[in-house]
Amino acid sequence: MTARGRSSSEPTSATLALRRVAIDTYRENVAYLHRQCELYRAEGFQALSKVEIHANGKRILAVLNVVDDVALVGPDELGLSEEAISTLGSEVGAAVQVSHAEPPASMDAVRRKIEGERLGADDLMAIARDIAERRYAKMEIAAFLVAAGQTGLDRDEVMNLTRAMVAQGERLHWHGDLVADKHCVGGLPGNRTSMLVVPIVAAHGMLIPKTSSRAITSPAGTADTMEVLAEVEVSPKKLHKVVQEERGALIWGGTANLAPVDDILISVERPLGVDYPGQMVASILSKKIAAGSTHLVIDIPVGPTAKVRHMRDALALRKLFEYVADRLGLFAQVIITDGRQPVGRGIGPVLEARDVMQVLRNDPDAPSDLRQKALRLAGRVIEFDPDVRGGDGFDIARDILDSGRGLAKMQRIIEAQGRQRAVYEPGSLVLEVPADSDGTVVSIDNFQMARIARLAGAPMDKGAGVDLLKKLGDRVKKGEALYRVHATFAADFGFAAAQVECSSGYRVGSADEMPEVFAEF
Amino acid sequence: MTARGRSSSEPTSATLALRRVAIDTYRENVAYLHRQCELYRAEGFQALSKVEIHANGKRILAVLNVVDDVALVGPDELGLSEEAISTLGSEVGAAVQVSHAEPPASMDAVRRKIEGERLGADDLMAIARDIAERRYAKMEIAAFLVAAGQTGLDRDEVMNLTRAMVAQGERLHWHGDLVADKHCVGGLPGNRTSMLVVPIVAAHGMLIPKTSSRAITSPAGTADTMEVLAEVEVSPKKLHKVVQEERGALIWGGTANLAPVDDILISVERPLGVDYPGQMVASILSKKIAAGSTHLVIDIPVGPTAKVRHMRDALALRKLFEYVADRLGLFAQVIITDGRQPVGRGIGPVLEARDVMQVLRNDPDAPSDLRQKALRLAGRVIEFDPDVRGGDGFDIARDILDSGRGLAKMQRIIEAQGRQRAVYEPGSLVLEVPADSDGTVVSIDNFQMARIARLAGAPMDKGAGVDLLKKLGDRVKKGEALYRVHATFAADFGFAAAQVECSSGYRVGSADEMPEVFAEF
Repeated sequence: MTARGRSSSEPTSATLALRRVAIDTYRENVAYLHRQCELYRAEGFQALSKVEIHANGKRILAVLNVVDDVALVGPDELGLSEEAISTLGSEVGAAVQVSHAEPPASMDAVRRKIEGERLGADDLMAIARDIAERRYAKMEIAAFLVAAGQTGLDRDEVMNLTRAMVAQGERLHWHGDLVADKHCVGGLPGNRTSMLVVPIVAAHGMLIPKTSSRAITSPAGTADTMEVLAEVEVSPKKLHKVVQEERGALIWGGTANLAPVDDILISVERPLGVDYPGQMVASILSKKIAAGSTHLVIDIPVGPTAKVRHMRDALALRKLFEYVADRLGLFAQVIITDGRQPVGRGIGPVLEARDVMQVLRNDPDAPSDLRQKALRLAGRVIEFDPDVRGGDGFDIARDILDSGRGLAKMQRIIEAQGRQRAVYEPGSLVLEVPADSDGTVVSIDNFQMARIARLAGAPMDKGAGVDLLKKLGDRVKKGEALYRVHATFAADFGFAAAQVECSSGYRVGSADEMPEVFAEF
Repeated sequence: MTARGRSSSEPTSATLALRRVAIDTYRENVAYLHRQCELYRAEGFQALSKVEIHANGKRILAVLNVVDDVALVGPDELGLSEEAISTLGSEVGAAVQVSHAEPPASMDAVRRKIEGERLGADDLMAIARDIAERRYAKMEIAAFLVAAGQTGLDRDEVMNLTRAMVAQGERLHWHGDLVADKHCVGGLPGNRTSMLVVPIVAAHGMLIPKTSSRAITSPAGTADTMEVLAEVEVSPKKLHKVVQEERGALIWGGTANLAPVDDILISVERPLGVDYPGQMVASILSKKIAAGSTHLVIDIPVGPTAKVRHMRDALALRKLFEYVADRLGLFAQVIITDGRQPVGRGIGPVLEARDVMQVLRNDPDAPSDLRQKALRLAGRVIEFDPDVRGGDGFDIARDILDSGRGLAKMQRIIEAQGRQRAVYEPGSLVLEVPADSDGTVVSIDNFQMARIARLAGAPMDKGAGVDLLKKLGDRVKKGEALYRVHATFAADFGFAAAQVECSSGYRVGSADEMPEVFAEF
């Protein structure tokens, strides 16, 4: 090759000074370059194209945004968010280099999936690695999710995806052969059984270090509700101390970097409103395996407005959980439960925490459905104990609860994690929603109740939510209150009230209209 | 309903002051709110969620970014890009209101498509409308594209999508029954036949007001190349004047807002690297119909490194074009052409413009393949003229070109649009790439040549690109130059040279290895 003119055949890369741009770009790195930046012009970068940023031997990928304001970044600067700067392991003012980024190599596999091909273990490992390294833009993740959802992942693909997701993050390790856990596939408001199962099972002496998520589209996650009572963002070191002392914990899993690919996929799945069985199984099992669980009870609620609507779908989902869990060395018991209505009375962090504490205190007003469901689930977890006879778990769980040992264990877990100093109360703006006729409550729409609670401000406003006064099968008179909406802020109250106007979520009719369900409990 | 506590049941919306944020967010509206903004907290907005912004009865949707820097937006301000502010029809400092945005209603149809359902005309109309109104985030567009690509759109769905895309933008109207046009499905570098077909057909007296795109992933679009010679961003008013006087024009279609949904879809398709026949047909035909064309010649190049690789695919694509065009009242003639190698010599705006002018000037050095292909295509367009006998088009086109009337028409079109004042030259940094052995050129990789030209700086740097000295079938000696890479900037030169090191894109072998092609010409 002959080079004419002044130049070298080595790619050159100009150097820019790193600057902090205080924009929260969530899970997508964004790089800001000034339109007058020589590099921007010379290298033919295009707005929204992907660039690779190098500093000190480290590199990250980012989506390029072009800026016309030197107050944000100057022509010789490169702007990054705080999080991106720390991922890069660099500091403000440091010299960084920028170049065109190649699209992630594993997008070839995604395109093959779009064509309907079956992906191998290596393909899925490469996809998970590129996602974990933030090489995928959100639209590329959407392409993967839809392609995998549409042709479907077969069960070996689900297994390989689960394995690939576990491989990308941290893993927690516990001293003990049996690390118990429970998980619900979701979709049922108020279903706060974990906060009962954990203290009961820990009081029985089994290890149950539960990591939970915060709500993404629901009015409360277990972490949001536990936070009403205790600190949930605890360091891995502290978590180990709590678990060593109390056998159980209820913390937010976000700090531990467990299966981070899952969080990234969820950040696209939720706004898209897509949710496929294969991805659900990979998501749940990868998180559990990464959290060090060995024995897992999975709760699949089935009902007309639950996430899973038909028994046949619940059974197919159960088989898929079993297939993947068995092959990845996790012992999973899947239980199909009644998902026709919310569990307990409260929907929203404060109201749900109140229900949980009523059950633990053996309060005569405690919601009996929450108590029953938690005891049955705790019983199943306790039966993982080789010394417990099949069928005895429920009685053991009930004894622990009735004797007050459940409450005592919960108090110790709260103290160990750090008791919440703020005192949260239900929101002071209250709307009572009355029955529009005499009759029996024959349906409660889980989605609509969750939506109302969310619009009222849950989970960000912990006191916001819905308090159910009537449940399925209850007789009501016209004008009698069905539920109360709690809000703290007038704007939220207005949104929730407008939603109630659209539909109360309740239907009052004659008792024989109530849908049947053939679940285990 | 009984409301207790201070509140109303009407949704309230606080007012914020509009501020300009000078970040180029391309086709996605982004709203910037300060983390301390009361509204952000009170309404439970989440970063990257969608919000609706109201002002003066107008509204737009935007993705919410959360900002921690009052230099960007203050707690009582809402930041928007210049483009979003003007879409909103508002001004900096104006009072705006923000609320949660509902996801676009047509996402339900997208989810049905993901499930494999066939979409009706109404579904596709609703999707196109929501996309045009920027209600879709990029990941939602990706979901639609992949879902539609994977299960495939049947031909009626393609027709309905085309119709829906036409319905969303402006339409150009011409005085005349026959408005001719030509279009190539792309993938072939240097294939600048439009700049020859337009003056030849206009010189024949037919109306051919050609709107073209700029390059997105290729080293040059017709608009980029024409811009070397003339203004291409002309107002609709000026366009009509040019066409009235000269019968032909070669302008950039971007200012006319023709089928804007197409541009938005392309902005996701290209970075994803997905390209499906159904979407290609809808994209091309919607743009042509919106541009007011009645008679269209479509060029489908077929070759091992072209966009369409097999004759069977080209035929299927031709039938789909014909089916949709016929039903939408556009007369389309589809021609399958030889796509085994780039057309002409130059790749990149300046080098391609040089080829075009050589052909128009009847320069003995003019690339004969470009001349032949342009004459054949122009001949087909001319045969749309009812007074021209079938088969006579080529001769008429050749007479126009040989007589200098083609050149004269091109000069008048250039003058009418506005002659380019800048003088562009090929980049002064030159790399000559030699043959590595004696033999015959048996393959030239279209993708690799385009990539090298792009890395050298095309199309942003108009003088950058590749100049082919040898074409398929040419005998070469070891060390003899195959092509030259031109660049203006050292960094670009380095990138291109590194790419050439990976692969020159040429293969020299024995003449019988050359792939055959059974195209029309």
